[in-house]
Amino acid sequence: MDALKKELMKRLKAKEPEMIRLRRYMHENPELSFHEEKTAQLIADFYEGKDCTVHRNFGGGYGILVDIEGGKPGPSLALRADFDALPIQEDTGLPFASKTPGVMHACGHDGHTAYMLILADTLIELKNDLPGRIRIIHQPAEETPPGGALGMVEAGCLNGYDHVFGAHVMSNLSLGKIAYREGPVQTGRTTFSIKLQGKGGHGSMPQDANDTIVAAAQFVTAVQTIVSRRVNPFDTATVTIGSFDGKGSANVIKDSVILKGDVRIMTEETRILIEKEFKQLLSGIASAFGITYELDYVHDYPVLVNDDALTKMFANTTKEAAIDGVTEVVRCEPQTPSEDFAYYAQEKPSCFFYVGATKDGDEWYPHHHPKFVINEDCLLIAAKVMGNAVLSYLYNGVK
Amino acid sequence: MDALKKELMKRLKAKEPEMIRLRRYMHENPELSFHEEKTAQLIADFYEGKDCTVHRNFGGGYGILVDIEGGKPGPSLALRADFDALPIQEDTGLPFASKTPGVMHACGHDGHTAYMLILADTLIELKNDLPGRIRIIHQPAEETPPGGALGMVEAGCLNGYDHVFGAHVMSNLSLGKIAYREGPVQTGRTTFSIKLQGKGGHGSMPQDANDTIVAAAQFVTAVQTIVSRRVNPFDTATVTIGSFDGKGSANVIKDSVILKGDVRIMTEETRILIEKEFKQLLSGIASAFGITYELDYVHDYPVLVNDDALTKMFANTTKEAAIDGVTEVVRCEPQTPSEDFAYYAQEKPSCFFYVGATKDGDEWYPHHHPKFVINEDCLLIAAKVMGNAVLSYLYNGVK
Amino acid sequence: MDALKKELMKRLKAKEPEMIRLRRYMHENPELSFHEEKTAQLIADFYEGKDCTVHRNFGGGYGILVDIEGGKPGPSLALRADFDALPIQEDTGLPFASKTPGVMHACGHDGHTAYMLILADTLIELKNDLPGRIRIIHQPAEETPPGGALGMVEAGCLNGYDHVFGAHVMSNLSLGKIAYREGPVQTGRTTFSIKLQGKGGHGSMPQDANDTIVAAAQFVTAVQTIVSRRVNPFDTATVTIGSFDGKGSANVIKDSVILKGDVRIMTEETRILIEKEFKQLLSGIASAFGITYELDYVHDYPVLVNDDALTKMFANTTKEAAIDGVTEVVRCEPQTPSEDFAYYAQEKPSCFFYVGATKDGDEWYPHHHPKFVINEDCLLIAAKVMGNAVLSYLYNGVK
Amino acid sequence: MDALKKELMKRLKAKEPEMIRLRRYMHENPELSFHEEKTAQLIADFYEGKDCTVHRNFGGGYGILVDIEGGKPGPSLALRADFDALPIQEDTGLPFASKTPGVMHACGHDGHTAYMLILADTLIELKNDLPGRIRIIHQPAEETPPGGALGMVEAGCLNGYDHVFGAHVMSNLSLGKIAYREGPVQTGRTTFSIKLQGKGGHGSMPQDANDTIVAAAQFVTAVQTIVSRRVNPFDTATVTIGSFDGKGSANVIKDSVILKGDVRIMTEETRILIEKEFKQLLSGIASAFGITYELDYVHDYPVLVNDDALTKMFANTTKEAAIDGVTEVVRCEPQTPSEDFAYYAQEKPSCFFYVGATKDGDEWYPHHHPKFVINEDCLLIAAKVMGNAVLSYLYNGVK
Repeated sequence: MDALKKELMKRLKAKEPEMIRLRRYMHENPELSFHEEKTAQLIADFYEGKDCTVHRNFGGGYGILVDIEGGKPGPSLALRADFDALPIQEDTGLPFASKTPGVMHACGHDGHTAYMLILADTLIELKNDLPGRIRIIHQPAEETPPGGALGMVEAGCLNGYDHVFGAHVMSNLSLGKIAYREGPVQTGRTTFSIKLQGKGGHGSMPQDANDTIVAAAQFVTAVQTIVSRRVNPFDTATVTIGSFDGKGSANVIKDSVILKGDVRIMTEETRILIEKEFKQLLSGIASAFGITYELDYVHDYPVLVNDDALTKMFANTTKEAAIDGVTEVVRCEPQTPSEDFAYYAQEKPSCFFYVGATKDGDEWYPHHHPKFVINEDCLLIAAKVMGNAVLSYLYNGVK
Repeated sequence: MDALKKELMKRLKAKEPEMIRLRRYMHENPELSFHEEKTAQLIADFYEGKDCTVHRNFGGGYGILVDIEGGKPGPSLALRADFDALPIQEDTGLPFASKTPGVMHACGHDGHTAYMLILADTLIELKNDLPGRIRIIHQPAEETPPGGALGMVEAGCLNGYDHVFGAHVMSNLSLGKIAYREGPVQTGRTTFSIKLQGKGGHGSMPQDANDTIVAAAQFVTAVQTIVSRRVNPFDTATVTIGSFDGKGSANVIKDSVILKGDVRIMTEETRILIEKEFKQLLSGIASAFGITYELDYVHDYPVLVNDDALTKMFANTTKEAAIDGVTEVVRCEPQTPSEDFAYYAQEKPSCFFYVGATKDGDEWYPHHHPKFVINEDCLLIAAKVMGNAVLSYLYNGVK
Repeated sequence: MDALKKELMKRLKAKEPEMIRLRRYMHENPELSFHEEKTAQLIADFYEGKDCTVHRNFGGGYGILVDIEGGKPGPSLALRADFDALPIQEDTGLPFASKTPGVMHACGHDGHTAYMLILADTLIELKNDLPGRIRIIHQPAEETPPGGALGMVEAGCLNGYDHVFGAHVMSNLSLGKIAYREGPVQTGRTTFSIKLQGKGGHGSMPQDANDTIVAAAQFVTAVQTIVSRRVNPFDTATVTIGSFDGKGSANVIKDSVILKGDVRIMTEETRILIEKEFKQLLSGIASAFGITYELDYVHDYPVLVNDDALTKMFANTTKEAAIDGVTEVVRCEPQTPSEDFAYYAQEKPSCFFYVGATKDGDEWYPHHHPKFVINEDCLLIAAKVMGNAVLSYLYNGVK
Repeated sequence: MDALKKELMKRLKAKEPEMIRLRRYMHENPELSFHEEKTAQLIADFYEGKDCTVHRNFGGGYGILVDIEGGKPGPSLALRADFDALPIQEDTGLPFASKTPGVMHACGHDGHTAYMLILADTLIELKNDLPGRIRIIHQPAEETPPGGALGMVEAGCLNGYDHVFGAHVMSNLSLGKIAYREGPVQTGRTTFSIKLQGKGGHGSMPQDANDTIVAAAQFVTAVQTIVSRRVNPFDTATVTIGSFDGKGSANVIKDSVILKGDVRIMTEETRILIEKEFKQLLSGIASAFGITYELDYVHDYPVLVNDDALTKMFANTTKEAAIDGVTEVVRCEPQTPSEDFAYYAQEKPSCFFYVGATKDGDEWYPHHHPKFVINEDCLLIAAKVMGNAVLSYLYNGVK
């Protein structure tokens, strides 16, 4: 295995310029979630003529599965890379900045796909020496609920596969660092939208109206008690009302208000608990003030829970490999954003890890920011770390 | 009539010492609402041997009716005086202070009864010259809901009577002043008591409890919207939560809270409106927080509404009479306290007026205060003003 | 006087078609508050060649004063009519509907001016027989604070005048009815706008943000206590937050919120009281939640307080006159809208009354509605009622 | 070492009846925190004539230090056992139930002291073979803030000692189980008491009063935002208002309210954060409603943080020792109650572990319950587990 790893590293290094070229091309031509037609075609075409099986339009959308059959018997492993962009106007000033107005690869999915294509290409080259099978999941629409993962999982993309790896570049993690955590690692999310309907009227005649702003304000206040009194203090939850749309005239009592917000949790039990409490509060407050409402309450991405054993195996093998460019392998805190990789992790034991993407001392911007950039050195690192994990897994399994 | 009035005034003046003696005796021997056994006996005994008809224990309690038949035909008029005391420890230092610990005539009902006894006695003396009939209603239990008036009215004490007069001495009105107002003149009242039941628990484990203090606080807050948003701003209402009984331990989540309070209104429509809103808010907030409750919501004294015509007649005749000792007859603002004379006024056109009881410059204390006193000169004034109104009414009617 | 009244009535009746023509012309050519250039010119030109003194551009705007000197000595009286329109798109389908898109005489000020021009014209004709002086105040900008009245009063339009009359047509009062009330008759108003500034952030990381929606909701809730606990229940007040502008994204904590609303009161003491409480609540709540704010708190129109004596004189003379077309003279409840006639009434004893403008059984729309109409018969009625009051006043004064 | 351990175990087993006798005697004679005069004397007297140094009244109270000098050089270790009882009326029906009315060993501190005396006695017997020094800390007043530990630590009881062990019997843990956790293991606590002062008054005249119940309710509501919006959702905190003492009359506006409650946290940073937010909210809300307040805000026990290395060493050595009676060594969740052992752990690397005290299937009651009991078999287990850890530590240190 060690010789094979060495060979893999050498070949990945050699293909780094191609990796960067692919990433820049995608960066220049971003496509929004569920609309990644050309990106999907680029990906699928990349595999043309290579010794692998390609399934296009898997799961009813632009998803692609690429199956690599190893030359020897062994375990089966899926790797996932996402490839959608965001509705953001790029402001990086990069020579290869987005050519599509208002659309930008502001989360690094271009990098995910680029490194994965090159890694897959190399694994195909080495497949005769590999014990087991590898499936590459090129997944669209990570950014927009219900998310591309859901459809692919439901269509059976993990049938017959034992474990899944995924990775995310991180602008707030130093280049060279690899971060991981067992157990719950990214929040699950629920989003809601409420239209509260009271009755309008003249500001000086409240008795003839039913002031929806007053009722909505009481609801906002009451909602605070979900986190403060209903959730176990050792547990994690937020309930945010991000939008209180009650714009009107100074002297007119407002007849309706629209509230929007989201819920973040780290266990599915807490999600269920909060749903019950939220609906009970809304129904009670509305009835108290004699107003009616329409509620959209949508369970979104699950909590992303990394498998303990696979994640420890990943951390150990990455540390032991002493990969060129990797300076530290750290156990990190859970992350607040949500990630539809969680659907794979619900289905099979999985490990989702983080790849540092900003050189120490360089300026950096958060993900989803118009000036978000990654240091392209992280692509080779990602490919090597994932490649090392793949080989360790195929040879030694999770133990 | 004028000669008769003169004679009445003269005789009342002559009996002033007796009036004061009676008042002091009652002051020294106060009895609580619904327990005025000896006071009732004193009153009824006063009429022994006089030319009138006395009904004891009218209306199922200590009420007394005294009927005076005039010598000529004419209208029929009822006069009401109350005679109960309060559960207050007297602190006036008067030589005739209450001899009963914790019970005090702190609202002047002793004075009401004293002047009425003497006025009745005099009207009996003059009855042959009177056109019409007079009924004196000596009413117990004004201070304590449901109030003595209710039972007497239900038992028919106003059957066959056309109009009713009543009066109250007022420590915050100057001696010599008589005050009146047509229409709604004292508030109606509703009292409530709510037991909210949540679930106790350790302060550090709110998820296993249901914090009743938090729910009750939200209810207190929500209740403010009844007056601020549901009641016509040209109308009058208060909703007060006077008691929030949620005493417990710092580190234990409170399992139950008792709220008590009252509602004051100036129209019965507002009373009904508030009841609906109050119950809707309570039910909604309780359901929002998953707590249960028991509610006692008791409609108490009605709004006291003076009859326009009778009140104007009273004001005019009092002004014209130029009664010795009466310095001014003023139209006053409505009063916030409630008064069970309201039950008579619901049944028959009535007039309830106020008699100043503090000499200008003298120290005074509000009604129900342990140092409450009246200037006894007000007794003769009350007798004269009421007597004058009676004669005017019997001779001229309301016009 | 009676003959003169008869003559006045006859002449007004004769000029009714002209009155209607004038009103329709103005209706077709409405101008917004503070922009009534052409309407002012029309009005002033109307008086060209008539035996009166005209002051144009009085008070720094489009105000016009017209002075009519009676032939005999007597008291001095001002009459006010307003002439601005509203930013509303007319939807009446009238043949003489507004020709200016988005601007409409939706409150009847066209009618006020039309009847006043004809009344003034007739009074000029009859001036030699009149004891005293009359000033017609043609006032712009009633609809928009700070209101046209303020500037004219400050410029001295009432100097040397004893009393003021004004009138308003009312679509919710039956044609033929005249309504009046002594004392406070229309609310005073204060308007406010608050920008609350917290700190934005990701919905899942509230600890790094400062949720302005939560703080604003607490403020909305706390504001309810002004009316429920700080204002005398026998007094009148509303505090309405008509606009809660906190629109944002579901998953982003809102960094700022703009609240707008108004305060209505019936005494200036209550206005001051509420200002103090409002500012105290805002400052306290902002400080509690660590947010900053900018507050615009603007005292707008005063309470409109009709003079008791003048209003009684008006009511009596109108009743006694038995004017053709006037079916009833009624004492009405106070009105909730505000009116800048209040500035005149602050300066001199005044009377503002209401003229029914909808025939019983006809469909009607509230003032400021795109379908608001008046029955034009009300113009002649207004002219007659005002004319009758003027003559009574000049001959008999207030008594 | 292994032979020595064997000897220790044998001797502890032999002294089990003495351990139980000591525990029962203390159980029968409980003393409240800071009043443990006789218990302290019993403890100190126990060591009379034994080869150790005893410091009585250490730290200004009833604390006792017992120093055991090993025969060979080595590390220095402190062991802590507490010995106070609670103000609870015992209801166990035990033959050795408390003879002092209203005072009870309802938390197992009698057991802690009993096993520790016997363990210390045995270590003294074996001291010549021990490398290093042992200090037994017999600590009073664990139950009542500020707690006995604080004074002893401040007086230097840990000077010259490297590490500290402590243990607690647990009625909700199965007999035979030993539980531990590295890092934060019991909450820190802050308690508060607030007296809010407004102004009383008649329920129907709120404008003359300042309703403290309304202000306090708003504060209770606002306080919910500390946990819901100010604390990191990955962190742990509760803020409980356990007492809202606002009992009064239905028709009287309440002039003052007393709130009491506590705060639980798992990091000292969160404690500081909450203190700042709490005080800001209180000050802001009070100022918003024009009320004054007095606040007692007392930082109580720190977060109890177990040292990672020492705790792992404890867990490993306990598992490896295969101690008779110990069925399982488990890593447990953090515990919500607070514990003044935290003061030792702030000073020196420490480990506090839990000893199961209820036989599976037996009825059990929570700590501080009048029926709280322990299965006395847990005493020998505690002595053995602690003794094993002591020997392992003295021989091998933390590694």
